[in-house]
Amino acid sequence: MSSIAESLAKKQKEISVSEFFERNRQILGFDSPTKALIMAVKEAVDNSLDACEESGYLPDIKVRLEKIDQNEFKMTVEDNGPGIMPNMIPNVFGRLLFGSRFHAIRQSRGQQGIGISATVMYGQITTGKPTRVTSKTEKDKPAAVKEIMLNTKTNSPSIVSEDFVMWDEKEHGTKVELFLTGRYVAGKQSVLEYLRQVAIVNPHTSITFIDPDGKTFIYARATDKLPPITKEIRPHPEGVELGTLMNMGRASRTRNLRDFLKTDFSRVSERLAKEICERSGLSETAKTTNLSLDQYKKLLEAMQSVKYLPPQTDCISPIGEALIRKGLKNVLDETKPEFYSPPVSRAAKVYSGNPFQVEVGIVYGGNLPADQQVTLLRFANRVPLLYQQGACVLTKAVENVDWRRYGLEQRGGSGIPFGPAIILVHLASTKVPFTSEAKEAVASIPEIQVEIELALRECGRRLKVHLNKKETKARTRTKFEIVQEILPMIAKKSAKIVGRPIPKLSGSITKIMNVVWVDDSVVFEKKKHKVKIIIYNYTPHSTRFNLHAVVPAGYLDADSMEPKPIEVKEDGKVTWELRPIKSTETMEVRFDLVGLDQELYEENELYASGIDPTLIIGADPLPGDWDVQRLQVTEVAAPEAAVAEEEEDEVDYDESKEALSDD
Amino acid sequence: MSSIAESLAKKQKEISVSEFFERNRQILGFDSPTKALIMAVKEAVDNSLDACEESGYLPDIKVRLEKIDQNEFKMTVEDNGPGIMPNMIPNVFGRLLFGSRFHAIRQSRGQQGIGISATVMYGQITTGKPTRVTSKTEKDKPAAVKEIMLNTKTNSPSIVSEDFVMWDEKEHGTKVELFLTGRYVAGKQSVLEYLRQVAIVNPHTSITFIDPDGKTFIYARATDKLPPITKEIRPHPEGVELGTLMNMGRASRTRNLRDFLKTDFSRVSERLAKEICERSGLSETAKTTNLSLDQYKKLLEAMQSVKYLPPQTDCISPIGEALIRKGLKNVLDETKPEFYSPPVSRAAKVYSGNPFQVEVGIVYGGNLPADQQVTLLRFANRVPLLYQQGACVLTKAVENVDWRRYGLEQRGGSGIPFGPAIILVHLASTKVPFTSEAKEAVASIPEIQVEIELALRECGRRLKVHLNKKETKARTRTKFEIVQEILPMIAKKSAKIVGRPIPKLSGSITKIMNVVWVDDSVVFEKKKHKVKIIIYNYTPHSTRFNLHAVVPAGYLDADSMEPKPIEVKEDGKVTWELRPIKSTETMEVRFDLVGLDQELYEENELYASGIDPTLIIGADPLPGDWDVQRLQVTEVAAPEAAVAEEEEDEVDYDESKEALSDD
Repeated sequence: MSSIAESLAKKQKEISVSEFFERNRQILGFDSPTKALIMAVKEAVDNSLDACEESGYLPDIKVRLEKIDQNEFKMTVEDNGPGIMPNMIPNVFGRLLFGSRFHAIRQSRGQQGIGISATVMYGQITTGKPTRVTSKTEKDKPAAVKEIMLNTKTNSPSIVSEDFVMWDEKEHGTKVELFLTGRYVAGKQSVLEYLRQVAIVNPHTSITFIDPDGKTFIYARATDKLPPITKEIRPHPEGVELGTLMNMGRASRTRNLRDFLKTDFSRVSERLAKEICERSGLSETAKTTNLSLDQYKKLLEAMQSVKYLPPQTDCISPIGEALIRKGLKNVLDETKPEFYSPPVSRAAKVYSGNPFQVEVGIVYGGNLPADQQVTLLRFANRVPLLYQQGACVLTKAVENVDWRRYGLEQRGGSGIPFGPAIILVHLASTKVPFTSEAKEAVASIPEIQVEIELALRECGRRLKVHLNKKETKARTRTKFEIVQEILPMIAKKSAKIVGRPIPKLSGSITKIMNVVWVDDSVVFEKKKHKVKIIIYNYTPHSTRFNLHAVVPAGYLDADSMEPKPIEVKEDGKVTWELRPIKSTETMEVRFDLVGLDQELYEENELYASGIDPTLIIGADPLPGDWDVQRLQVTEVAAPEAAVAEEEEDEVDYDESKEALSDD
Repeated sequence: MSSIAESLAKKQKEISVSEFFERNRQILGFDSPTKALIMAVKEAVDNSLDACEESGYLPDIKVRLEKIDQNEFKMTVEDNGPGIMPNMIPNVFGRLLFGSRFHAIRQSRGQQGIGISATVMYGQITTGKPTRVTSKTEKDKPAAVKEIMLNTKTNSPSIVSEDFVMWDEKEHGTKVELFLTGRYVAGKQSVLEYLRQVAIVNPHTSITFIDPDGKTFIYARATDKLPPITKEIRPHPEGVELGTLMNMGRASRTRNLRDFLKTDFSRVSERLAKEICERSGLSETAKTTNLSLDQYKKLLEAMQSVKYLPPQTDCISPIGEALIRKGLKNVLDETKPEFYSPPVSRAAKVYSGNPFQVEVGIVYGGNLPADQQVTLLRFANRVPLLYQQGACVLTKAVENVDWRRYGLEQRGGSGIPFGPAIILVHLASTKVPFTSEAKEAVASIPEIQVEIELALRECGRRLKVHLNKKETKARTRTKFEIVQEILPMIAKKSAKIVGRPIPKLSGSITKIMNVVWVDDSVVFEKKKHKVKIIIYNYTPHSTRFNLHAVVPAGYLDADSMEPKPIEVKEDGKVTWELRPIKSTETMEVRFDLVGLDQELYEENELYASGIDPTLIIGADPLPGDWDVQRLQVTEVAAPEAAVAEEEEDEVDYDESKEALSDD
């Protein structure tokens, strides 16, 4: 008699990863016809951008959607990338978990080797048709054309047809044509919006889109500078886990423990490797292949007890403050926002051994709707995230900031704030921890959330400075207009009536106004930002105070400063001790910034001290601790700990093998 | 010279599914130590429950967590299931995408063949230790013990050790012991809360949990009735997609198109199969292996143009109204809610060919906090969902209902409402469309959302009836007390003072009160619900009106009804034409319900007609269209369409092969 267990055992079997996703395509993001169309465009465009950037070509992407019948669309995505070797085409498009970037520790859009073959699979499930790939890798060669389907039972490609064609208009590039069931819509979650957001964070890209009605949309390139090619790094020792460490140790080609630490990890110098060995109680010359579980535990403890330099940042590619602005301006022109907050780029940090960096920007005012929740633009590795906003740590960070402090409405001080603003959050990382293969939301990693919140608060502070200035100036200006226009008229009339000379009014005006008015402007000409600050003393008394400005460090032209400041700090904080200004008189402060992109300085950040703060309009009271950080365009995080090394000894693997003996 | 494409090609390779998840374990839900511990318990408990139920054993689950050091825990989960054949243990625990339920179209907790092996993998990555599995499949045999690790490079199991032991205290069962990094916490997202919610929706289960401090928690079984074993069905033709249809047709073992439709799909009768063939213009005897893409397209169109019976419901296992209540009461006792809404079970529906059914329940009042958002308990196939609430269609459906209509606070009529309530939503399906392998949230499938909203609105209506009754009764009772206590005292005092007899007050009281008071009660005794409705006429005039009650259909004892009603509808709507009641007099209406579980009837739903609705307290005005649906405990959905068949011709595959000739 067979047991229940035996009969159950007969049903147990392995399934292929493509069978799994065929049945669970919602995990890949193909859970509705609208979304399927966006996903397909996204996967193809991501691949094109990655390929172009890796190869140093400025991306030129063409996307076309054609309606075949009620539900069926044909998608064509064409790029000017390096092309794909003909023999690799079947696997790249017809096999899940096949790709070139999975093990590489550096930022890229695609990493999983799932996206485009999942799209091929979806197209074939819904229309029964193969995907056609045309690819040209060299100028003088013909292009390979293959029609591919994916065998889901075995997760392997079938070649339906193959041929070569001439493709003369292109030196190199790839064209993907596929049929799929979908629905084309307009709005916040649409192909057009997706491409618009791609353009914002990829200003080096030119995108042409032809919609199903044949209408053409062009997002022109806003810069000719390609982002630097990201470099592969070795794993950072911070946050490495026991099992991973054991796997690495057992697979290592190094001769001993010290070499292993030095060679297989980044940011571990010879000295640090020795220190770790000593702390762990293990011999520097121990063989990593022979260590026991307990020894690995001790090694891990020792590794976690020392401090490392932050990871190299050349493995990630933030957009940068200037380009975030350029991208936003390029695309948001129609809404004419009144204020682009200087974007904030934080220094690179690490979670579980993976370097990451966050950038945020805020756009305010103009035609943006004032009575709705702010628009949140989420990006990961320069890819827009349109779905699963509620499940994403980028959203959670925004909800967790008390925006009431920064001039936006927010019930209870948490949640998405209300107001005429767009908040942009970009996470760049060698490994973005998405919550699913659809790559729509980022998992709640505390380290990432903290960094985004810090960046948002700083951006919020800048917004607040702008709003304060705007509000107080507006309020005072109205008063001024009344006082300066009406008082003299009254005086004139009354003088006429009583037949006496018109009285001098400046005393009265200053008594009524009783403010020190700081009026500042920035003009960009001849590659210089010319800043002029005029201070009007509309109080009945003489006044003197200290004026402070925060400017981008390193761009200040010392010779241009008039009057000379008493202090110029390295981080861009400048202080003037002003001479006394008599009642009704004015004085001017001027300086130039040289060598800075126009977009990066549009509004002055001014503070005053040594004066009753209620008297002054146009400059905020100086925070007690001069707590006015302006992060620089390229901030380098300082090592925080005693054991951290100033410079990493870079050890090339082969060199080290030769140089180090097994002692 | 090699092209860029060539050098890129060298990096391209396939990775194993376990390597993928090793690097992307947040997708599996292992993204924080707290969550990892919950996930591990969840995966093991899900497996145990599935195995017990499939085999007809009432589950008896023991979970123990022990703290090994600062971050490391040992988890032990033991069940009384059928055990696992020794030769299957390595694959079940050491290979991703290995399982018995992937292709089966019927409801089960596990389907992916990922959960438990992912947990084994997580344990080994974080602690370096193997998982130990003890399994006994027959009473008189020893138990097999194996220590398993998962080779992530190849996605295959390694057996670290194997042995047999005696395990006398159990006839059969499985014990899993594994070590993992985690953090043990209390609160809304915790192991204890997870197990508590498992107990709510699995009242047939007994769960013992020993926490890291050695404290024992026991959730006792609330019923000895196992849920019916779900049956496997063939795919439902509604929503099948072209690619799937082609795959099915090409792999079919049937002889011709008509047989294919009849045999490989559920709910396609001989007549319907012929109808489809005719509509598609294809011959009934066409070979499905030879059809072209265009022919399949026509077939699909024809299949989509006819109507089918809803899928059989024996493939899904809803909890049922009675057990939802039992489960809630069993676990919520300490909060003493004032009201358990009769849960609503909708009829089974289909999305993309997958049958599903939703159930909702509301608990209100008692010690539940009144000033917070209501607690939402989400379940899928009897498994609690603790994370990703914001990304889940179950949540979206709750947010999309205007709860202000049902007596809960809600800003703007959307979003999670506020109030002292718990809303339970259960989705049962042969395939729950989770947004990721972590199975934390259900994707936004419109068909599912609509069903949940309908169920919620009905549940909400019942809550509103309760709240209305409560409020109006409370208000009137206060008035009553004042009038009935104070008026006589005043009368007595005044009479004494003026030395005259105490006046008769009933006329004055009825003038002041001017209400008809309906007071009802339900008592459960001797397996009967005894309902008594007393009507007090506190108006100055004689009154008569129609009284209506909605009771569970089929349980009404006709002989017990006093007075006799003028109408008893099949769906449980009862109407009495009451005789006139004189001012200050009362009358009684009584009836019994027989054979209904005690939990299923606790409050009467009463309506009145033929009377000024402002006069009556304790019964709501009858909605104009008698639009008072009470869904039955076992509602059977009626076919909606002309072509739908009354009865499906069940054709066993082998039988059909013999019976049907190739004509």
